Amino acid sequence: MKALEEKIIADGIALGTEVVKVDSFLNHQIDVAFMRAMGQEFARLFAADGVTRILTMESSGIAIAYAAAEAMNDLPVVFAKKSRTNTMDTETYAASVKSFTHGTTSVAKVAKKFISPDDVVLIIDDFLAHGEAAAAMTSIVRQAGAKLAGIGVVIEKRFQGGGDKLREEGVHLEALASIAKIEDGKITFC
Amino acid sequence: MKALEEKIIADGIALGTEVVKVDSFLNHQIDVAFMRAMGQEFARLFAADGVTRILTMESSGIAIAYAAAEAMNDLPVVFAKKSRTNTMDTETYAASVKSFTHGTTSVAKVAKKFISPDDVVLIIDDFLAHGEAAAAMTSIVRQAGAKLAGIGVVIEKRFQGGGDKLREEGVHLEALASIAKIEDGKITFC
Repeated sequence: MKALEEKIIADGIALGTEVVKVDSFLNHQIDVAFMRAMGQEFARLFAADGVTRILTMESSGIAIAYAAAEAMNDLPVVFAKKSRTNTMDTETYAASVKSFTHGTTSVAKVAKKFISPDDVVLIIDDFLAHGEAAAAMTSIVRQAGAKLAGIGVVIEKRFQGGGDKLREEGVHLEALASIAKIEDGKITFC
Repeated sequence: MKALEEKIIADGIALGTEVVKVDSFLNHQIDVAFMRAMGQEFARLFAADGVTRILTMESSGIAIAYAAAEAMNDLPVVFAKKSRTNTMDTETYAASVKSFTHGTTSVAKVAKKFISPDDVVLIIDDFLAHGEAAAAMTSIVRQAGAKLAGIGVVIEKRFQGGGDKLREEGVHLEALASIAKIEDGKITFC
């Protein structure tokens, strides 16, 4: 998505070789009009997949998942909640998520009643890096016996490999912007 | 908001005398169309306040803040991030938040660049109970030297006192539903 690449260049901040900060429109401040445009792009990209429900992860995924849901005839959204411990809870699906950025592991949980085996689930998130959050959400979709329509992310950091692993598994993955390299404060797109 | 009271009665679950669970449409699963209607109601209630920016708290405030912003000509939204520690950070406004439900204290932070002294800030959140989150966000607005337009919450648990304290301070507070009592699985509105 050309407009997104331009926005990342204009407003994003490249930190080292691994991080691009986009907190001015995506994951701290939210640019609602731009989020809506990205939601409409996801709706176009997954129009043929028969999506019945969107799954995302708190917190940064919520706004873009909402925008995508609104563009897809107000589909229901459910966001996985992250907690430190995996307490025995028979009412939730759970999967652990390792954060490379923070060096921590948390557990993502979704109440069972919010994904049924009849669902065709689209996973939406702000970033795809090593693919840990996507793997956790994919596991939750499988635990529910639902069908995975695909995964849509705003920004893929392709050099971190998570996306290519998913493509090899045959997942329908769409990234609105795909970053090949971050170097000397400069962001290069694929 | 009549439709919200009806939805709370239909889908909410009263737990003990303090908690009403509304995870089927507000803070786990998100009912996008209903969220949009509530956002429009906030736009109506704060139409005369010259709001320039919406402030909320991750995670459960994000969807309703987005809906309100969309109904108010796509105002920018910023969500406070919660962390365990208040590391010395000169680039953020910070305020501590006590959670009565979880018995924990966290620190809510907002990057300074996302609230300016020229802003007229509307605080939006899903719940108002003892008023701890509202107080933390109000403190952040004051630290920024911005003007507080008011506070809009989806559900006020009036019996927990946070709302009345804010009203006494002269804050323009609007709750779309106000709960007087939770007892024997029954929810009574004000």
